[in-house]
Amino acid sequence: MKIKILSIIVLFTMLLHAQDDKETIKKIYDSSLTNGMSYEWLEHLSNDIGGRLSGSLNAERAVAYTKEELEKLGLDKVWLQPVMVPRWIRGNPEFAYIETKPGETVGVNICALGGSVATSSLGVKAKVIEVKGIEELRELGRTAVEGKIVFFNRPMDETLIQTFNAYGGCVDQRYSGAMEAGKLGAVGTLVRSMNLRLDDYPHTGSMTYGNLPNEQRIPSAAISTNHAELLSTMLKLDKDIKFYFKQNCKQLKDVKSYNVIGEITGREFPNEIMVVGGHLDSWDLGDGAHDDGAGCVQSMDVLRLIKLSGIKPKRTLRVVLFMNEENGLRGGKKYAAEANRKGEKHIFALESDAGGFTPRGFSFDCDANNFNQILSWKPLFAPYLIHYFKKGGSGADVGPLKTDNNVLSGLRPDSQRYFDHHHAANDTFEHVNKRELELGAATMTALVFLIDKYGINPIKNHQKIKD
Amino acid sequence: MKIKILSIIVLFTMLLHAQDDKETIKKIYDSSLTNGMSYEWLEHLSNDIGGRLSGSLNAERAVAYTKEELEKLGLDKVWLQPVMVPRWIRGNPEFAYIETKPGETVGVNICALGGSVATSSLGVKAKVIEVKGIEELRELGRTAVEGKIVFFNRPMDETLIQTFNAYGGCVDQRYSGAMEAGKLGAVGTLVRSMNLRLDDYPHTGSMTYGNLPNEQRIPSAAISTNHAELLSTMLKLDKDIKFYFKQNCKQLKDVKSYNVIGEITGREFPNEIMVVGGHLDSWDLGDGAHDDGAGCVQSMDVLRLIKLSGIKPKRTLRVVLFMNEENGLRGGKKYAAEANRKGEKHIFALESDAGGFTPRGFSFDCDANNFNQILSWKPLFAPYLIHYFKKGGSGADVGPLKTDNNVLSGLRPDSQRYFDHHHAANDTFEHVNKRELELGAATMTALVFLIDKYGINPIKNHQKIKD
Repeated sequence: MKIKILSIIVLFTMLLHAQDDKETIKKIYDSSLTNGMSYEWLEHLSNDIGGRLSGSLNAERAVAYTKEELEKLGLDKVWLQPVMVPRWIRGNPEFAYIETKPGETVGVNICALGGSVATSSLGVKAKVIEVKGIEELRELGRTAVEGKIVFFNRPMDETLIQTFNAYGGCVDQRYSGAMEAGKLGAVGTLVRSMNLRLDDYPHTGSMTYGNLPNEQRIPSAAISTNHAELLSTMLKLDKDIKFYFKQNCKQLKDVKSYNVIGEITGREFPNEIMVVGGHLDSWDLGDGAHDDGAGCVQSMDVLRLIKLSGIKPKRTLRVVLFMNEENGLRGGKKYAAEANRKGEKHIFALESDAGGFTPRGFSFDCDANNFNQILSWKPLFAPYLIHYFKKGGSGADVGPLKTDNNVLSGLRPDSQRYFDHHHAANDTFEHVNKRELELGAATMTALVFLIDKYGINPIKNHQKIKD
Repeated sequence: MKIKILSIIVLFTMLLHAQDDKETIKKIYDSSLTNGMSYEWLEHLSNDIGGRLSGSLNAERAVAYTKEELEKLGLDKVWLQPVMVPRWIRGNPEFAYIETKPGETVGVNICALGGSVATSSLGVKAKVIEVKGIEELRELGRTAVEGKIVFFNRPMDETLIQTFNAYGGCVDQRYSGAMEAGKLGAVGTLVRSMNLRLDDYPHTGSMTYGNLPNEQRIPSAAISTNHAELLSTMLKLDKDIKFYFKQNCKQLKDVKSYNVIGEITGREFPNEIMVVGGHLDSWDLGDGAHDDGAGCVQSMDVLRLIKLSGIKPKRTLRVVLFMNEENGLRGGKKYAAEANRKGEKHIFALESDAGGFTPRGFSFDCDANNFNQILSWKPLFAPYLIHYFKKGGSGADVGPLKTDNNVLSGLRPDSQRYFDHHHAANDTFEHVNKRELELGAATMTALVFLIDKYGINPIKNHQKIKD
């Protein structure tokens, strides 16, 4: 009989908890949709500051602005964490054309890839060899490639529903193409922009030369998808046409920058740290509204929405705006190294770095035990049409915080339009919808609330109690 | 033993079926994403034709164009179904201002509501009374309202996740506001645009005077959300400010128009008819790309994708492009009346009329038996992130086809941005994303494929076999 009564009490308490959770989460969404700050912050970051490439003046302005805004929130601590970052500059706008015969040219849209060397001050002009990827390049070998511009033109796979998978299937051309072509004596590379749409924007992004000696480091540019199609068609008509491009980019010395960090210290378990974050740096062509202004302002708003919803976290909650995700990941690595050095215990880290689009759910990097606990919360998210809860990667910046025992997560917004804007001049504020951004902030906050309330490693904790 | 073997055979057949279905649906999505026609058709409808208000020349051009395109698809039949439609014209652009004192004015953005009468040729100028809705208006009564312009300013509820619910909670002001204010002697009405965003676009839409005598029919306009906020603020500072507006709209005589219909006749059960459709008419301010050009071209592509995927429907599949959904629903009513007159049996009808955004699922108007069968197909949609399967309304045009035994359905795309564009000058082609549109067409096709293959009323059929 005693057991029966106890069971009823436990069940009743559980139901009360579920009802509480439902109401708290409703409060979080309502606050974000009626009283969120993410859109206003993003407007400033995008329109008043703009593109925030690591080491640039704008990046430093963004550090100062977000620190100031976090200070207004009445958090327990706000600080800057110094980190040395690479400084690559684009220089004058790139210039390129296809030459069908001397004096007959067609202008095309290109941009230097981040980390590329410049061309000579006169530019480079050469015949073009089109390949679908690095393997094809290697098969062709030095004879076919030497003295030429290699044109990597494998498009993203349109049939993949999750566009990040299509990106993953193509980006090796951008990242390693110049290194591989340089080894074979090419004089430059062009890569089809990582974009599912046919348009006129070239999309930049990071690339590497690995350990190549300087003389094998060749200039590398992205070409818009429309002009990739044009170039490919023209090559089919005449393989002897030439391509000219000129770019003035340069790698300067590393400079000092910062991760921006704000904290609400936990009341019961201050040593258990939860992180929400995005990266404050962006590429220079657009204003970085989706990548990753959105993730930064959403993460900032998580702490604000927690407070607005009357939640006093048991665990320590930090927002981290990481510097230099795009071309070095120095901020993410630095934050993890410092955490490690101080012996901090990060139980949870959530990154938003997939655009400010309608949130669909999360991916989780954790063990089955934690994943099952998270799945048990799925019904709480159903009223908000949040349905995607899958094992998978989290985010580049929080990745270095992974341990065997903690939970990393990535917000997963609708991905259909992400690569229309990614790393291009049209990654701009007007392409972010206020409600979609706010729904993302609320969705992140709801997950943080549940992790804070219930902790992680549920069965292990339970066993600890039993033992 | 015999039973066991039979069971194994049945199970094996079921698994084979499921595998087949999975592959067919993959083929449908692949075709739509790599070889869809919906975007190209929409480009023509939006940019080369434009807004298609019932009875307009553009509506007739759209009829001719879509009929021609359907004829190219090699369907079994393509025809026009005549229907008389109302013809309302906007006339010269509307003009409006707020007058703080004689000679001191601030221009504001308005548009006549569809079906509204004009002002006098000199316009109307009067004091303004702001209300949150019809109930408040009635409580104020004739004394407060007579001789004034009634300003309905209840905003859409931002906290509702599904924006159509927020629309449903507000649209009575637009639809019946002028009728109710006219009864109390008002001289005009203004309604806050049905838009969750603050911007400068007025949003039109249908309204009614019911059976009011002509002298009580007052001109009615929508005002942009930014200017609704402005007017409300100015009224708080001075309730005696005046509002002036002038509009030249007119209801002309009904004219003949058409539903556009194409059919693949069923091979086994030609008398069981399945309909997919959208409405071909649109409001006149934008080009009607989302509302409902998107639904039309998706529906057209369903028949094409069925053919491309090698499916030969057992049942008859029709695309119907309905005329006059926006201000009369004459096309939907006519189609159902003709079906009824001919004794046609419509087992299924699916409408896409919620914008060309990323599809999330469907709502279903059917009994539990059919709904359970549909739910059993949910896993087949999971790879495409289609997760929303709920009981609910279908679409205005297919609504009149409802019987106790059939299944009606509405495509449910992501709704966050829909009311940014709905019935406004910015409902234009560039706000439709190609992939999102194509995913919608594929999702509709997949459902049609399953309905065609398995039929409806599964338990009843099963029992019939047993009896």
